[in-house]
Amino acid sequence: MTDLYGFQEKLFALQHAAELLFYDGVTVAPKESSENRARTLGIISEEIYKLKTSPEALAMLEAAKPENKEEERMIELLLKDYRNMQKLPMEEYIAYQRLLVKADDVWRRAKDASDFKLFEPVLKEIFDTHIRFAAYINPEKDVYDYWLNEYEDGLDMSICDEFFEKLKAEIVPLIKLTRERPAPGADCLKGDFPESGQRELALWLMELIGLDMGHVGLGTTEHPFTTSLGSHLDERITTHYYRDNFSYSMFSVIHEGGHALYDTNCKDEYAFTVLDQGVSMGIHESQSRFYENILGRSLEFTKYYYGKLIEIFPQLSKYSAEELWRAVNRVEPSLIRTEADEVTYSLHVMIRYEIERAVLHGELAVGDIPQKWNELYKEYLGIDVPDDKNGCLQDSHWSGGNIGYFPSYALGSAYGAQFLARMKESVAVEKALSDGDFAPINAWNREHIWQHGHLYKPGELLERVLGAKFDPSYYINYLKEKCRAVYGF
Amino acid sequence: MTDLYGFQEKLFALQHAAELLFYDGVTVAPKESSENRARTLGIISEEIYKLKTSPEALAMLEAAKPENKEEERMIELLLKDYRNMQKLPMEEYIAYQRLLVKADDVWRRAKDASDFKLFEPVLKEIFDTHIRFAAYINPEKDVYDYWLNEYEDGLDMSICDEFFEKLKAEIVPLIKLTRERPAPGADCLKGDFPESGQRELALWLMELIGLDMGHVGLGTTEHPFTTSLGSHLDERITTHYYRDNFSYSMFSVIHEGGHALYDTNCKDEYAFTVLDQGVSMGIHESQSRFYENILGRSLEFTKYYYGKLIEIFPQLSKYSAEELWRAVNRVEPSLIRTEADEVTYSLHVMIRYEIERAVLHGELAVGDIPQKWNELYKEYLGIDVPDDKNGCLQDSHWSGGNIGYFPSYALGSAYGAQFLARMKESVAVEKALSDGDFAPINAWNREHIWQHGHLYKPGELLERVLGAKFDPSYYINYLKEKCRAVYGF
Repeated sequence: MTDLYGFQEKLFALQHAAELLFYDGVTVAPKESSENRARTLGIISEEIYKLKTSPEALAMLEAAKPENKEEERMIELLLKDYRNMQKLPMEEYIAYQRLLVKADDVWRRAKDASDFKLFEPVLKEIFDTHIRFAAYINPEKDVYDYWLNEYEDGLDMSICDEFFEKLKAEIVPLIKLTRERPAPGADCLKGDFPESGQRELALWLMELIGLDMGHVGLGTTEHPFTTSLGSHLDERITTHYYRDNFSYSMFSVIHEGGHALYDTNCKDEYAFTVLDQGVSMGIHESQSRFYENILGRSLEFTKYYYGKLIEIFPQLSKYSAEELWRAVNRVEPSLIRTEADEVTYSLHVMIRYEIERAVLHGELAVGDIPQKWNELYKEYLGIDVPDDKNGCLQDSHWSGGNIGYFPSYALGSAYGAQFLARMKESVAVEKALSDGDFAPINAWNREHIWQHGHLYKPGELLERVLGAKFDPSYYINYLKEKCRAVYGF
Repeated sequence: MTDLYGFQEKLFALQHAAELLFYDGVTVAPKESSENRARTLGIISEEIYKLKTSPEALAMLEAAKPENKEEERMIELLLKDYRNMQKLPMEEYIAYQRLLVKADDVWRRAKDASDFKLFEPVLKEIFDTHIRFAAYINPEKDVYDYWLNEYEDGLDMSICDEFFEKLKAEIVPLIKLTRERPAPGADCLKGDFPESGQRELALWLMELIGLDMGHVGLGTTEHPFTTSLGSHLDERITTHYYRDNFSYSMFSVIHEGGHALYDTNCKDEYAFTVLDQGVSMGIHESQSRFYENILGRSLEFTKYYYGKLIEIFPQLSKYSAEELWRAVNRVEPSLIRTEADEVTYSLHVMIRYEIERAVLHGELAVGDIPQKWNELYKEYLGIDVPDDKNGCLQDSHWSGGNIGYFPSYALGSAYGAQFLARMKESVAVEKALSDGDFAPINAWNREHIWQHGHLYKPGELLERVLGAKFDPSYYINYLKEKCRAVYGF
C-alpha cells in the first residue's frame, strides 16, 4: 500500500480496465464474446474488491492526515466505500459483476426479439442481488431508500413521492391543455437520414457545445450513454442512429454531451481520485437534460443549428426553423422515454419508479413487470404498449444494474430549470444560443458546478449554486412557459 | 497462488485488459487520451510483472506434475517466461509498456506529418530497450539473434542470411524477366470506392473464408493487424480503407483473416492457457499470407469473388475477372510493403532485416534510418522514396516494439508454399477456390496446424505437417509459376 494518491491511482487503473471491458462489449465487440469478457471482468473485479477491502487500505485511510478539504472528502468517500464493500461477500460481488456482462448481452437479444421472457431470469437475479446487497450493507434502511440514496445522496421515497405528486398535479392538466390545441406537425422529423449524415451532425454538435474533441469519443450502441475511462481525460459518449429519424440521435448526442461537459471540465488535478466524478446522478442529469432540452430545444438554438441541419439534409429545407422547433417540442404521450417531450417525460420516470419500488418490496414479481408496465402506460399516458421492445425492454438501466437511477432524470430536469433562473442573473442565455456561442453558458457551469467534481454533496452544491433550497416550482413554471410558447395559449 | 490453470487464467485476464487498452487506443479512443491510457497500462503491467515473477508462481510451476503433453508444454513456456521476466528490472519493464502506448501515438503523428524527426527519440528508446533487455536476459547471445528467436523459436541470422540469399538469387532475375514483358494494366484498382462498400466487401469476405463472425470483429486502424483479447474467443482484425483503392483493404482483410482463422480455430480447451496462440510468428504469417496470396490472389478465387465485387462496385464491370487477377498479381517494385506483389515482397522484408540488424549492432544510428532506408530501396528495388511516410514510417511494427518480427513474413510465405504442396495431396484446392468453398482447405489447416495452438515448436510442427524439413524451393517454384501464368513466359 502506498499513500492516498497511489491507492486511488491503482483503483482507477483497475476501474479503467473494467469500464473499458464494458464499453468494448456494448460498442464493437463480436456478439458471442461476452463470456470471455465476463471471465476477465470477474478477475478484475476480484482485484478491485481486494484492493478496496484490504486491511492496509483501511489502516492507510484511518491514519491519513488530510491537508485540505479535498483530501478530507476523498477519505470520507473512500471510507464509506470500504465499509460498504467489506460487508459484501467477495464471491457475491464478483458473481454480480460477471452477471452484468451477461445481462447486457441477454437484454440486447431479448430486446431484438421483443421477448421479455428471455430477459426475465437475469433481471430477477439483478433485482434479487439489489435486495441482498442492500440488506448486507444497511439492513435497517428500506431497500429502495438505500438504492435511491446511492444515486442521489440524501434522496429517499418520501422526497420522491412529494416531488412526483407535485409534478403530476401540474403536468396532467398541462397535457390536457395542449391536447385541446392543434398538435404541431412532426413530419419534418421523419424521412431518410443516412447514418453518415447523422454522424457528421453529431460531431458538429459536440464541437459546437464546447466538448474538447481530443478527449471525447463518439461510439454507437443500442442505448446511448456516457462513461469516463480511467479519468475525465478519456470520455466516451454513445448514440444510436435510426435511419428514419434524425432527431433521436441528435438530441441523445446533446444529452450525453451535457454529461461529458460535466465530466471533462472537472479540475485536472482531481483525475485519478474519487473527486473525479459528478456530485450525484441527479446533478449529472441536470446537466445532460439542461443541454438537451433547455438549450437544445430552445427556439434560439433551433434557429442557429437549422443552417447546418439543412446543409446535411437538404430535404428539410422545405420546413422552417420554427416548424422544426415546434415539432421537437410537441407534447404527445409516447412509448419511449428518451424520445419523450419535456412535459410527459417525468411520467415515464414515475412509471419506472413505481415498478422498481414494487419489485424491491416484494409486491410485484419480475415476471409481472411487462403487464404492470403496460397498465401504467395506459393509466399515466393513456397509450397502449404494443410489445416489450417498446415497453419494459427499452432502457438499458436494469441490465446495467442501475436500479434506483431513474428518479435522477426527473430531479435533474427540475434542478436544471432552477439553475437556468440563477444563470440568467449573470449570463445572456438567449443571446448566446442565438449566436451558437456556448462559451458564457459553459463558463458559468464550469465555475459553479463542473470544476468541483465530487467535492460537495448534492444539497451542499445546490445551496452554493442557488443560494436557496431546491424548489420544483421553477421547473413547473418552465414547462408551462414552454407550452405557452409552443401552443400559443 | 492457485494451480496451473488459475495462475494462467489470472494472467490472461490482466493481458486481456492490457491488449484491450492497446486496441482501444489504436481504433476508437480520442486522440489526446494516450497519457491516461499509458498510466493505466503501467499499473496493469506492474500486476502482470508481479504475477509472473512471484516466488509463489515459481514454486507452483516447479512443483506442478504435468499429466499430459499439454501441461508439460504449458509449464515449459511459463518457466521460460518466468526466467526471462525475472531478469528484467520491474521499473524498466513498466516504463517500456508505457513507452509503447506513447510510441503508437507519436508514430501516427509523425506518419501524418511525414516527419521521421518526430518519431526518432521514441524509436531510439525502443531500440535501446531491445538492446538492454536482450543483455539482461541472455548476455551471451547476439542481440539480434535473441530477438529473431523470440518471434520464431530456432531462428537466427545465419538461417535468415542463407534463406534471403537463396531468395534474392532467384527473385532478382525473375523480376527482370517480368520487366521485359508488357506490364498488366492496373487501372481497375483505382477509382472511387466509398468506405461503406469496402466495409461490406470486407465483412462478406470474412464470412466467406470461414471466420466465425460471432467471435471475430472488424475495426479500422492506421495499420492493419490482428489480436486476440483474453482468448481466441474474442478476436479482432483491423483494416484501413483508402477511398481511391479497394484492393488495399480487401487483401489486408484476407491477410488478417488468415491470422484470425489460425487463432480462433485453436482447441477451445486451450483458452486461458499459454497454448492459446500460434506456434510462432513465422507459422502465423504462413497462414495469413497463404489466405492473402496463395488463395486470395489465385485466378480461381478471383473469378469467384468477381461477382460480389462488381455488385458492390458496378464501375468495375468493364474489366474482366482475368484482368483483375493480372492487376493484383503484376510484379512491380513499389514503396509500400503491404501493397507489394508476392515477388518483390521479400525484398521489402530484407531491407528491414538489414536495418534492424545494423541498429541493434550499433552500426547504424536511429537518426540515419531514413537515409539508409532510401538507399536500400534504391539498391534492392530500384525506386526513389519520396518521403518518410512512404518510407521508414510506413509500418507500425517498430512503434509496437516488434523488432525482429519482419523476417517472419518472408519465412511464413515460404512455409505456406510448402504447405500448399502438401495440402494438394489430399485437397482439391483449385476446385474449392472455384466454388468459393473454403471448408476443405480450412479443415486441412485446422487438423494439421490451427487446433494445436502453441503445443509444438516451429520445427516440430513443420516436420509433423510436411513429413520433411522446411525447403524454400517450394516457394521459389511457386513464385516462378505464378509469374509464368500472369506474364505468359
